[in-house]
Amino acid sequence: MDLEHHHITTILLALGTILMSARIMGELAIRFKQPSIVGEIMAGLLLGPTVLGNLSPDLMHALFPSEGPVFLVLKGIATVAVVLFLLVAGMEVDLSRIFRQGRVAMSVSIAGIVVPFTIGLLVAWLAPGVLGRETGVEGRIFMLFFATAMAISALPVIAKTLMDLNLYRTDLGMVVIAAAIFDDLIGWIIFAFVMGMIDADGGRGPGILGTIGLTVLFIVFMLTVGRWAIHAILPWMQARVSWPAGVLSFAMALAMFAAAFTESIGIHAVFGSFIAGVALGDSSHLRERTRSTIDQFVSFVFAPIFFASIGLQVDFIEHFDLLLVGVVLMVAISTKVIGCGLGAKFAGMNGREALAVGFGMNARGAMGIILGLLALEYGVIGERMFVALVIMALVTSMMSGTIMQRLLQRKVPRRFADFLHPKGYLNPLKATSRDAAILELATAAASITGLPVEPIEAAVLERERMMPTGLGLCVAVPHARLHGMTKPVICLGMSREGIEFSAPDGDTSRMVFMILTPADDDGAQLEILADISRTFLESTVRDAALRAASFNEFVAILKTRESNLRPMVSRQASNAP
Amino acid sequence: MDLEHHHITTILLALGTILMSARIMGELAIRFKQPSIVGEIMAGLLLGPTVLGNLSPDLMHALFPSEGPVFLVLKGIATVAVVLFLLVAGMEVDLSRIFRQGRVAMSVSIAGIVVPFTIGLLVAWLAPGVLGRETGVEGRIFMLFFATAMAISALPVIAKTLMDLNLYRTDLGMVVIAAAIFDDLIGWIIFAFVMGMIDADGGRGPGILGTIGLTVLFIVFMLTVGRWAIHAILPWMQARVSWPAGVLSFAMALAMFAAAFTESIGIHAVFGSFIAGVALGDSSHLRERTRSTIDQFVSFVFAPIFFASIGLQVDFIEHFDLLLVGVVLMVAISTKVIGCGLGAKFAGMNGREALAVGFGMNARGAMGIILGLLALEYGVIGERMFVALVIMALVTSMMSGTIMQRLLQRKVPRRFADFLHPKGYLNPLKATSRDAAILELATAAASITGLPVEPIEAAVLERERMMPTGLGLCVAVPHARLHGMTKPVICLGMSREGIEFSAPDGDTSRMVFMILTPADDDGAQLEILADISRTFLESTVRDAALRAASFNEFVAILKTRESNLRPMVSRQASNAP
Repeated sequence: MDLEHHHITTILLALGTILMSARIMGELAIRFKQPSIVGEIMAGLLLGPTVLGNLSPDLMHALFPSEGPVFLVLKGIATVAVVLFLLVAGMEVDLSRIFRQGRVAMSVSIAGIVVPFTIGLLVAWLAPGVLGRETGVEGRIFMLFFATAMAISALPVIAKTLMDLNLYRTDLGMVVIAAAIFDDLIGWIIFAFVMGMIDADGGRGPGILGTIGLTVLFIVFMLTVGRWAIHAILPWMQARVSWPAGVLSFAMALAMFAAAFTESIGIHAVFGSFIAGVALGDSSHLRERTRSTIDQFVSFVFAPIFFASIGLQVDFIEHFDLLLVGVVLMVAISTKVIGCGLGAKFAGMNGREALAVGFGMNARGAMGIILGLLALEYGVIGERMFVALVIMALVTSMMSGTIMQRLLQRKVPRRFADFLHPKGYLNPLKATSRDAAILELATAAASITGLPVEPIEAAVLERERMMPTGLGLCVAVPHARLHGMTKPVICLGMSREGIEFSAPDGDTSRMVFMILTPADDDGAQLEILADISRTFLESTVRDAALRAASFNEFVAILKTRESNLRPMVSRQASNAP
Repeated sequence: MDLEHHHITTILLALGTILMSARIMGELAIRFKQPSIVGEIMAGLLLGPTVLGNLSPDLMHALFPSEGPVFLVLKGIATVAVVLFLLVAGMEVDLSRIFRQGRVAMSVSIAGIVVPFTIGLLVAWLAPGVLGRETGVEGRIFMLFFATAMAISALPVIAKTLMDLNLYRTDLGMVVIAAAIFDDLIGWIIFAFVMGMIDADGGRGPGILGTIGLTVLFIVFMLTVGRWAIHAILPWMQARVSWPAGVLSFAMALAMFAAAFTESIGIHAVFGSFIAGVALGDSSHLRERTRSTIDQFVSFVFAPIFFASIGLQVDFIEHFDLLLVGVVLMVAISTKVIGCGLGAKFAGMNGREALAVGFGMNARGAMGIILGLLALEYGVIGERMFVALVIMALVTSMMSGTIMQRLLQRKVPRRFADFLHPKGYLNPLKATSRDAAILELATAAASITGLPVEPIEAAVLERERMMPTGLGLCVAVPHARLHGMTKPVICLGMSREGIEFSAPDGDTSRMVFMILTPADDDGAQLEILADISRTFLESTVRDAALRAASFNEFVAILKTRESNLRPMVSRQASNAP
């Protein structure tokens, strides 16, 4: 069997379709304030047997066959994708922060395993029928599997959710990550044990004890000797080998070898690349640029391929069992949140934070699904249970972000770009004087807000008379607080010739932002003013913005600023002496 | 058949091995002033049947099986890799420059096809025995194939060679690229014709005329409507969709769809992604950052996987036929260089440039090899011919760079980092005064050059007395020209407290570069001085350099400067109004 002409066509079509759908669904998820991973998994449901397969089975089988060369290649690519995604997740881990959080993390992770595992065992023992235990499966094995599925964590999903929420590199984020790493390790070791019970000749690896021993050895080795060696070799490589070719190849090869090692000892490949990522990312010699090239390509190209491929496996409607889904959801959520929450509380966190940790740990996904897939292949569970596990993963991931954000009340400072409106973008401004410009912008603002023009104009002019709002560097920010508004509105007039707003640098203003905020919103005005002045301090942004030919081009310039790329604390900076 | 546990282990091991070997061999090639692609193909020879297969066939078959799931997945990944590589090559094409060079390019490409094709036909007609025509292959088909193999160009290799030589975005580079695009298109169309003759029922695609028609339609569509649509959609996408996720997914999906289209109409997939790359790369809205993320990941991760995978196919020693290789080399090189050279000369280029164009076009590789692989699969040629074609590709690629560089006498300005020496890196400098520092550095320089200390010290001190060499910003550059040296030597002393070199900014110097150049080399001193002062103007580089703890760290800082990333003319800048 070889890759024929038409196989190649199908593979390329399938990859293109997956990438496009995952992005579109990911963007939709973001619009609904969900992590984009939820959308990416949904994209798989749309393309797989659940939706496309019911609408047009032929098209689905043509694009995503369930056997043969195309199937194998797509599955291989998805495997490489998840391995690389875990490399990136590992690179983001800050070891020193984990060590600092070690005690709390340990407490969270032990409680987060013991509670779900014990209750999972109990439920599977008491109600195997409800859980849809397949006939012919030994009770002991089914119980152990279900308990493991409840206890296992989902590092990739948790990492992505925390990254999406900008919580990854906080102390709380690191407690959750550290606990999740530990839980996943334990979960995989238990699962390897279960696999060993099914496959009595131990064909999958070096036996249970061997697997555990080698795993521990691997982790210890990579995080001590491996980490030091990487730190020592990076400057040599950057000095003597082509850059960034050398470091990129090194990182990729390291991930592949580490993944191959853990896969071969009976733990899933993703663990190896994760631990390799931790060792690599810890070196302060790794350049920010290299880090972000890998990060971007993997997070935005490889990861969506993997997450979307999950939904391609099974028909989620046909195998949907409400009772089963309900029981799985209830057991999974309650045991994990309570277990981890108690662990965190016990370690001294306050109630709100402890609950946030519980819900953070509660996000399942990749790991549980991989486990489910393996169990499905080995006949331990049926498709109904698999569907219930994937739905549980989706629901917990969707809850996780929203609830954590609400519990922690993380206020994200408002960005002015979010309040711009195409109808409020006047380019070029007709006015040539300050007052005429304010009238022109107030008229635009009136049509957006539905308020009458006059009070807007009057309020802005009054404020302007108290103190001129020219900031300098071509920017002016006439503003006012108004009753009857529910959210800020910003209009922007671009003036070729410039308008006099008495800026301290003596220049006229070529970008006039009229900022209208609700009278009862204290913070909005200040946050927006600060954001505008910070943004246009960068001369590259200012110059590009002045040249923008349309509203979209203008917003694109704001959204694609280099400084937007890594909103998290820069590793380079935090490691500097 | 499914991907088992051990298949995944093998795939990961194989990918890691390929990436590592390709990088190591690529670096070796660079050391010998060859394009890194030569090393990457060599890596495949080492890992494939040629070397590893002869040393340890079991190991080779275990790592790179020639059938089964692992084989399919690796082949699929290599296909995706070459598709993406052509996307990047396409993105680098500057359409306006091609149009400007259109007449010359057309002349080069027509002569570059007609001459090799005609002579190829003739040779295959006169001496089919020498060329090892397989029994049972129709003479007409074999002749057409051989003529096509002589005429076809190799866009990916030519592009990579020109990029490696920093010639890609010059006028001459664009003539070569434009002509190569045209030649490849014609070559593939002829090849599709040959394929059609073998596979009479036309199962491979829409028939010869259909293929030609659809190809022309596709190119015209992508470069007009497609190009405008991309240019219009990019700002919208950057403004409204997550960045850089949106643009990255869009670029990848576009490449996949375009590749699937051309593959389905009977032209190879790489054409589609190449043309899509041209349309995408032409938009000035595409951010430099997005461009370089794709560029780096693809050039340094995907491309080496494809090029290395070529050598995995065949045993190059067993199937090596000296006479055949000699004939193929002679016919290929002479017809292509003479044909293209005459075309360029005819279009008004001077003799030296015309010859450079001829040798530029002469680099074969990917395309010829893909063609050869297909012909091998269809039984048109045997393994001996395939080996001869690959060797021809390697030899022509190796000649191409060296000869072009010699013909064009491109002087690359010398960079000071190339003349630093670990023994000349004194950190910290013991001296605290100017003269003591000069003595300390001269002593180090003496041990590197083999010259006595005193004349070095005297020459530098004399120069220093004429005019102090403190540049300011912590840098001083005491220097001298010396007899008895063959190349520049630079020693660097790092001083914690700083040494007084009468810098114009009044500060002491904490980095003292002693620059010794041969007395008869006029340019060296000036180029090195200019390079040093330019480098340390960047405060981030200066600060990092002052903190460097070792020679390697210091050099790594110089090599990994952001400004090193794209030595070619920046597209963003050249497209600005």
